[in-house]
This record gives sequence, structure tokens and C-alpha cells, in this order.
Amino acid sequence: MSYINLDHISSKPLLPEVKAAMIEAINADYANPSSQYSHGEQAAEKLEAARVSVAGLINAALPKEVVFTSGGTESVNHAVKGVAMAKAKAGNHIVTSNIEHNAVNRSLRRLQSQGYHITSVSVDATGRVDPEDIARAITDKTILVSIMHSNNETGTIQPIAEIGAVCREKKVIFHCDAVDSVGVVPVDVQALGVDLLSFAANPFYGPTGVGGLYVRRGTLVFPLLDGGVQENSKRAGTENLIGIIGMGVAAEQARLHLAERLAHTAGLKERLLRRLPDYIDEYIINTHPEHSLPDLVSLSVQYIEGESVMLMLDDEGIAVSTRSACATGSLRASHVLISLGLSHADAQGTLVVSFGIDNTAEDVDRFLEGLQRTVKILRDISPLYQKRKG
Amino acid sequence: MSYINLDHISSKPLLPEVKAAMIEAINADYANPSSQYSHGEQAAEKLEAARVSVAGLINAALPKEVVFTSGGTESVNHAVKGVAMAKAKAGNHIVTSNIEHNAVNRSLRRLQSQGYHITSVSVDATGRVDPEDIARAITDKTILVSIMHSNNETGTIQPIAEIGAVCREKKVIFHCDAVDSVGVVPVDVQALGVDLLSFAANPFYGPTGVGGLYVRRGTLVFPLLDGGVQENSKRAGTENLIGIIGMGVAAEQARLHLAERLAHTAGLKERLLRRLPDYIDEYIINTHPEHSLPDLVSLSVQYIEGESVMLMLDDEGIAVSTRSACATGSLRASHVLISLGLSHADAQGTLVVSFGIDNTAEDVDRFLEGLQRTVKILRDISPLYQKRKG
Repeated sequence: MSYINLDHISSKPLLPEVKAAMIEAINADYANPSSQYSHGEQAAEKLEAARVSVAGLINAALPKEVVFTSGGTESVNHAVKGVAMAKAKAGNHIVTSNIEHNAVNRSLRRLQSQGYHITSVSVDATGRVDPEDIARAITDKTILVSIMHSNNETGTIQPIAEIGAVCREKKVIFHCDAVDSVGVVPVDVQALGVDLLSFAANPFYGPTGVGGLYVRRGTLVFPLLDGGVQENSKRAGTENLIGIIGMGVAAEQARLHLAERLAHTAGLKERLLRRLPDYIDEYIINTHPEHSLPDLVSLSVQYIEGESVMLMLDDEGIAVSTRSACATGSLRASHVLISLGLSHADAQGTLVVSFGIDNTAEDVDRFLEGLQRTVKILRDISPLYQKRKG
Repeated sequence: MSYINLDHISSKPLLPEVKAAMIEAINADYANPSSQYSHGEQAAEKLEAARVSVAGLINAALPKEVVFTSGGTESVNHAVKGVAMAKAKAGNHIVTSNIEHNAVNRSLRRLQSQGYHITSVSVDATGRVDPEDIARAITDKTILVSIMHSNNETGTIQPIAEIGAVCREKKVIFHCDAVDSVGVVPVDVQALGVDLLSFAANPFYGPTGVGGLYVRRGTLVFPLLDGGVQENSKRAGTENLIGIIGMGVAAEQARLHLAERLAHTAGLKERLLRRLPDYIDEYIINTHPEHSLPDLVSLSVQYIEGESVMLMLDDEGIAVSTRSACATGSLRASHVLISLGLSHADAQGTLVVSFGIDNTAEDVDRFLEGLQRTVKILRDISPLYQKRKG
């Protein structure tokens, strides 16, 4: 029985092209790209080729607007804390939403403890931010707006271009956490009007532990990592060249194949949503019907625990997620689901199914059959469900 | 003609064992170590096995005292800024030396701009810090002492255990930047009495862009990267698992083979220093005769530019460094060399020759021959040298 990965939001396999490029890089023994002799220059060329590729994926005007980082979390920390430090004299107010990833939330909490004020705008019942709310939240002390592109738990996509327009009009720096969108759906930094955009390689089948921060030319942001003059003095530290080379190839592949990937995963998502009522009842779909990632479905199955479903499906060789990919270990109900108006009980029954290019229609069907069995077993032993049935 | 790397301080080749482990990891398509299903647990086991191996190399009491980072620069930033944030209410004074790496220097400069006070202790003419000077610099506002283990430009090793004893007595947190020492010379966090120790994988033939921060149990340090609960909530972000697996294997190999590596590179260093007078005259050795890395020689060749020597040797297929591996792009004379009392002119003629396990005695001889030719050519066209000769 083959293993079915329906948790691509937590990890995606490397593309064969990415594997080949990384293995080649491992065997090449590149020198330090900062070294000025010929072996260092060869390494620097590889680094810059990857930067061009990544810049192309997000439509950056200049490759040097891309800063390589150790992943989405570093990018977000760099953007949020870097602007806060750089603009400390101009103001101390930051606007965000109540469904951000913990990388944003906890970076902001850190800043709050240092005297910054945070306004967190609530999403509507469909999980979306109203750009008008952002406009109303901005004051003359506001130095930064940070809103995510797509939510990693629900897949819902925010009206980023509209929020970008608000920020431009109000002359406030706009950071977008696009970690789960870049390479998955079209993300164009020009069309979105963002000043800073965080992303990572794994969501487009590149390695984990590598990411990027787009910094629009002229945007004032201090480094998070101080030291050497790498990355145009924006991020110190000897580069993870093997990972960056992998990211460059993954970005190129994503740019070339985005449309077909979108169509493939959207087909699987449509199949899941269409067939789901034939397998289980009493569930809530948390994913926006229109504005959402093509490859992700969040559903809250009532009267059961998502974790139990996950573990039982694991026994059948099927991987799904019950919460944020980065949040296991925390036992609290997801702040994202609560923000949508879900009860704590319903939030507990939430599964996140996320598709990849390696999934098939048969995977959807095997998941549905497994889910049906699992839900029946769990509801049979659920006091909540028994009570409900009277 | 084969290429000779005499710049191991800037980059070391990956060990065959490291390459094999990384390639295996690339092909294994590990899941996210934070995922709770079986594929995630397999990834978590790999992560923890690497942690055990790295903890063994530095003699940490517990594997979880090792936090994986994106390299030495992140480790240093995390240690220095993390303690400053965590201890902000206890005091705002930090003690360091005037020969630290830019990762420490610029992290401290950043803190200085935020209201912290820095005391920078000068080294003596041999490049060493006097522990008594550290004791005298500590006040009741001192929250951190940060001193490097070995200097990346001169190879000189500091009396860390003695400074550790001072910090313990004064109850001040002690961070040691040991990036160029761990895996090169014995580094034992118990013997040294450090609370925090920064290190990286490449100096012991692991990948670049991966490192670690040792945090002694009970040491109060805030995260630099806020977000998920990875690394025991000390460092958020999905892990660079491929790189970390490589680091784990490199650490194990370093632990097993440290003595023979030491003997090999020390033999090459001895050969270089012994034969050097037969090839050139009028140079200064900046490396401490006793307390220094076994694999590094810093020499300042008078009346010439180190960069020209580097470029001419590059044409002969020999790589050497003229300054800090992370500092190319900065055109200023090295603060480390100036701190030793060197003139700016002499500092300009500085070459850093650093050996690795792949070097041979023949490499030393080829370097000496190349150096002799190069120095002659450069001095023949040097106005400084002509003037000196009268």
C-alpha cells in the first residue's frame, strides 16, 4: 500500500530537478561566494543565478530586491522587526489581522513588549480582511501593515492588492506574508503593491530551511542578522548555497508550470468537496469558496477530535494535518478557526487536506473512504455525538 | 594543474560521509519533523540524532542544549541579542573585546543604538585578552560577556576557561563565539564554563548555512526568530533538515578524527613557518606562536598589497584569503590586525593561509614558490619598497 501525502502544507517533496541540482551542488564543493578568487566567483555566479530565478517568480523589478533567508519564519521576523527598528523614530504602531501565522503574531508580541502598539483587525465570517478596516486602523503613528496572502490553516486568500493600495495612499510600509502562496498561486509584487513579501522554497517543491524576503528598492528595513556584508548588506552570514541553488531551480519550475499545477490540484479539491457529502455529514468547510488556495481544504468534522482522525488515517498510510504546520506542540484551539466564529469543539475536529502535484483522484477517494470509516468509529465512541443524537 | 585550497577558513569541502548523508536525505523526501504522523516522526528522529551527535562534539550535558540555526552568524546574533532582550531589566552593559568577528561587533552596535552600553577590552600585542581586564570591566549593570574562542584572521586562541571562571564568579552570562574552533580544536563547554557557545558546520567539513547555538540549561535567552515551537521553542521555523543531517555526520566525524586532523594540519603549518624565511623576507607573523589554531597562519608581507598576491596566486591555482571570510566588500583595514599594533600599510599586505585535511606538504611548497615569485614581482613595482630600499 503506497503512502499518500495529503499534507503538502506541512511538507512537499523535492522536484526531481531540484534534487539533481542540489546533488550536483553537493558534489561541486563550491567555495565561499564572498571569496574573491575564481572559485569564489563561480559560487557567487550560482548564487546570483538563483536570485534571478526567484526574482522572476514574484516579478521583482531587480534581482537584488530578493534577500535569501533561512525560510519563511526568518523572512517574516526580518520584515516585521526590521521595519519596526528602522522606523522607530517615525512611530510605534503596527496594523495586522487576527489570522496571521505565529511567525507574525509572535514577532509582533515581541515588539509589543518593547513598547510598540499593535492593532489586530478581525476577519469577517468568511475569513477575509476588509481593506476599509485597515484604512481605519492606520494612524499617523503607523509604521507597518502586515497581512498574510493566504492562510495556512484555511487556504483563504486576502485582498492584498486592495490593502496594498490603502497602504500606498497612506504611505505606510506594507509587508505580506506570502509563504503559502508564492509558487502555488500567481504572486506578483508589482500587482500587489507590497513593499516587503516573505516566502519560502518548500511550498514550491524546494528544500526546507531556505526562503526569501522581497524588499522593494528604497524600503527602509534593518537587518535581523548583523555581521558580514552578504546579501547586499541586508542579511549577514555565509549562504546556504546548496539550498539556495535548490530554491532557484524550484522557482524556475514553478514559474514554468504554475498553471498546470493549479489546474491539477484544483481538480482534486473540487472532487473532494463534491464527493464529501456522500461520505460524511455534519461538517463545516472553513475554506473560502472563491478566494482560496487551489490545493487546500479545511474542514471541521463535528463531534470528533481531528488528532484522532489524523492518527487513524496515518495507520492507513494517509497523511493529513490537523493544525498549522508549525504549531504542533501547542494544545490550544487554533486562533484562526476561532476567528471564523467556530466553537472550540468544532475547531478540535478540523482537518486540513492539502494536495500536491504527486496526488491523484484515487488519493482523494482513498482519503474519503478512510475518513468515512474513521469518523464512524470515533463518533460511535463520542459522548458529544451520542448526546447530539439524543 | 590541480587546484590548491589554502583558504579553508572561508570554505571547507564536504566530507564524503557528509555528502553521502545529505544525498540520502535529499532522496528520502522527509516530512516535516513537526508533523505528528509516522512520516513526521521519522524526520524528527533524524533531527534528534543529529542533535545528539553535535552535543557530543562540544560535550553538552543534554542534546536539547543544542539549538540548530542557519549558521554562525545567526547563532551569534541569537546569543547576543537574545540575552540583551531577556536581561533588559537587570542591566544594559555588555563586555567584549576589540578583535571580535563582525557578527558580534555589529550585533553589539545594533544594541548600542537601542541604549545598551558596550565595553570593548583591548587585546595585548600577541592578540590575547587578559581575563583580569574582563573582571575589571564587569559592573553591576553587566548582563553579558562575549569573547571569541579563536580569531578567524589570526588564529589566535583566547583564554576562554579563565574568562569563564571570571564570569561565573561575577554571575554574568558568558557567550563564546567558537565558530572557527568547534570541530577544529577540542571545545568542551564544561571545561570552558560557557553559558552560550556559537558554532557552525562548515569549519568541520559540514555544509554552509547550518550552525548551532549551545544554550546551557537555565540560561535566559530570548529567541531571535519568533513563531512556531521548533527547537524547544528556542528557534522558530521549519528546519533545514538536509543541512542538519549533514552537520550531524560532520560532527560525528570531527569527534572521531580531531586528533589526526590536528596533527596533519599542524605539520603543514610548521612546515610553512619553518620554510618561509627561505622564500621571502620582511614579513610579520600575526598568529600566536603557542595559543592558536593548528591550521592557520596569518602573515603580513611588507610593502605589497595582499589582494594582489591573492589574485596572482589564483592564476596559479592557489586560493588564499586576505581578510575575514565574511568581510569582503569592506575596503577598510582589518580592525583585528590594527588592534595588534600593525600599521595600515602592513595590514594591507596580510595573507591568511588556512589548511585542511585535503592539503599536502607539496601544497605548502607550491604556495611558497608562488609567494616568492609574486612578492618579487609586486615589490619590483612597489614605490613603498623602492623607497625603503633607498
